Amino acid sequence: MTRTERPVIGFLTDFGLDGAAATCKGVMLSICRDAQIVDVAHTVRKYAIRDGAFVLRAALPYLPVGTHVAVVDPGVGTSRRPIGIRTGRGDVLIGPDNGLLIPPAEALGGIEEARELSNRDLWLPVTTSTFHGRDIFAPVAGHLANGDATFDDIGPSVPTQELVRLTEPEATTADGAIDTIVTYVDSFGNVRLAGGRQELTTAFGALADGAGMTVNLNGVGPQTVTFERSFGAVGIGATIVYVDSSGNLALAINQGNFAGQHRVTSGTAVNLRAI
Amino acid sequence: MTRTERPVIGFLTDFGLDGAAATCKGVMLSICRDAQIVDVAHTVRKYAIRDGAFVLRAALPYLPVGTHVAVVDPGVGTSRRPIGIRTGRGDVLIGPDNGLLIPPAEALGGIEEARELSNRDLWLPVTTSTFHGRDIFAPVAGHLANGDATFDDIGPSVPTQELVRLTEPEATTADGAIDTIVTYVDSFGNVRLAGGRQELTTAFGALADGAGMTVNLNGVGPQTVTFERSFGAVGIGATIVYVDSSGNLALAINQGNFAGQHRVTSGTAVNLRAI
Amino acid sequence: MTRTERPVIGFLTDFGLDGAAATCKGVMLSICRDAQIVDVAHTVRKYAIRDGAFVLRAALPYLPVGTHVAVVDPGVGTSRRPIGIRTGRGDVLIGPDNGLLIPPAEALGGIEEARELSNRDLWLPVTTSTFHGRDIFAPVAGHLANGDATFDDIGPSVPTQELVRLTEPEATTADGAIDTIVTYVDSFGNVRLAGGRQELTTAFGALADGAGMTVNLNGVGPQTVTFERSFGAVGIGATIVYVDSSGNLALAINQGNFAGQHRVTSGTAVNLRAI
Repeated sequence: MTRTERPVIGFLTDFGLDGAAATCKGVMLSICRDAQIVDVAHTVRKYAIRDGAFVLRAALPYLPVGTHVAVVDPGVGTSRRPIGIRTGRGDVLIGPDNGLLIPPAEALGGIEEARELSNRDLWLPVTTSTFHGRDIFAPVAGHLANGDATFDDIGPSVPTQELVRLTEPEATTADGAIDTIVTYVDSFGNVRLAGGRQELTTAFGALADGAGMTVNLNGVGPQTVTFERSFGAVGIGATIVYVDSSGNLALAINQGNFAGQHRVTSGTAVNLRAI
Repeated sequence: MTRTERPVIGFLTDFGLDGAAATCKGVMLSICRDAQIVDVAHTVRKYAIRDGAFVLRAALPYLPVGTHVAVVDPGVGTSRRPIGIRTGRGDVLIGPDNGLLIPPAEALGGIEEARELSNRDLWLPVTTSTFHGRDIFAPVAGHLANGDATFDDIGPSVPTQELVRLTEPEATTADGAIDTIVTYVDSFGNVRLAGGRQELTTAFGALADGAGMTVNLNGVGPQTVTFERSFGAVGIGATIVYVDSSGNLALAINQGNFAGQHRVTSGTAVNLRAI
Repeated sequence: MTRTERPVIGFLTDFGLDGAAATCKGVMLSICRDAQIVDVAHTVRKYAIRDGAFVLRAALPYLPVGTHVAVVDPGVGTSRRPIGIRTGRGDVLIGPDNGLLIPPAEALGGIEEARELSNRDLWLPVTTSTFHGRDIFAPVAGHLANGDATFDDIGPSVPTQELVRLTEPEATTADGAIDTIVTYVDSFGNVRLAGGRQELTTAFGALADGAGMTVNLNGVGPQTVTFERSFGAVGIGATIVYVDSSGNLALAINQGNFAGQHRVTSGTAVNLRAI
């Protein structure tokens, strides 16, 4: 049996499920027939660059090294730059220069080099002003994945300090207190928070499973919750605070929907306090 | 032209569409680059083990023999066992021991052997308590698909009578009567019922297309419906009872949404009666 | 490294995301293990043949030449014909004879030949009346993709003038006026209209970016909008008229949802007027 090492392309957009992402995949496959395309997500909240960055940062480190395309791009067709980023791990990330690619690049070993996509030989022959995913990002990724273009071919280097960056939400800690913010609401309604195990330890010391604390958010609370490792450690409908599978602080209701019940969205302020 | 027989991995979860399933696929592909992963469904109703089992049972018999992963797992991180099941057809099913894998295993030739996943050499080096799909199930499936581990390698045998099983909903029949229950509501709003052609014949004899009967459910009815083979055999908006493409009794409105119109969910009692 | 030219199968349905499309993909892969299946869309509005045709026409020209399957098929199991269409570009389109395949065939170089699927050797051994996607369309496509059947094998020729066709919505123009109709609402809420750049020029002459016109629809308006090439050319919340990435006239709100805000659906009449 012959085995071929197929090039991997991770692909995330806010295009929804009605054909636009498939169109881009068609372009990639027309150039690189052997590509193994992994749809990371296409139902990212429209225009929500931070949500896209969160999902990419959580997912891409688990994909093989590859050429990954991400398009959450409210500025398509304006002067925002189309870019490629080469990461420490060896991936290339392709997408708009609006902050979307920075968090995943940092999770993939950091930014080694950034380049502006300007080599039109790697684009579709005709480009439009509203669908750079199809016309620019997909074909560039296809050529890189196929090996008929190198990272240097995509366009001139851009100083990494010139790249657009999102402000990074942060948790602040005090003795017995964490003030943080919701960074992402997942499809279960579990809410991911800025900060992680380190902030937890700084604020509350070494927490045993089942340790109690209070949570305030959206004018609701204080509600007592327990620190646990798994959802099923508490009864159905009970709330836990936990460190999620990417190392973030998080809140969840066992078999329930925390965000739906408490009307939580990205950016909601959350206060955790020792009892 | 060289053809490679690519290993197939069917994959079903209730993770939704925001990156968690893609993360698992990345893990599988990192281990088995050639895998042909078939996303069976990722929008299974959250925590709905029966729904997941229904979809698996309907779909997996039509996939090539492979290593299939299913994760509807409210007990993740608790003492519920992670298991593998070898089927009569030669598939391996990987997932939690909560009943999810039994109906599809039975549809794939029955359970030949079950094993508990305990060989950590086949897991990711670091595991968490909230994402066994990524940390345990996906890598085990990847190694099996890739052929660098055998079913015997995944862990010790578990007596099949020790496996957790869901109670199976059943239809009861009398002369001119079927009392049954909704087992699944599909995306069209068609409702699948316990029982099949045998129950239909037992209760109503040899039914001709267009034969009438009445249906009662949710305090609505009796409503007269007709037995048909295809939706378009009746007018738009008319209701039919039929034997679905998996052999289940079912109710549908031609070009309508029966479940939506009658507020039907899994577990709703349904009574069919001769006129 | 050995490279194999994998056969491409594009696949669009209104089956939703709960396993039916995956079942069909399993059938395709069971026959053609090497197939590169591209899910064009499976959340097409139920029974909306025009929506499916719109998405296919926009997407398929960007896929490699292949065997493409489309199933939006309210008449499944009735006397409507199952067909295959060979296109000028060399694709084969497989699906119901209800108009769904005509617009994409025209976008792929036109209809070269149509055949009725009647060769049961290429179907599943057992067929049902409610799931031709699984039982007929998928296996025929699998055999064609795999190369063990040719287009001539699928069944007898059908005169192309006998194929079912949808009436094509059209725009009418006068000096300073376009009367048109909504042909599709995409996942962003952008509305695509009958007519394109030619109608725009006929009605309004050579339009500069930023040129104003008025739009009336659904009893709302006249609202002043500007002609632009990209969404971000106007402020957030402002409306533009533009030529979309497939050449259609279209309306959008920058980072908003035009269709949602104005309750627009396919078939809504739209009047554009010079100021």
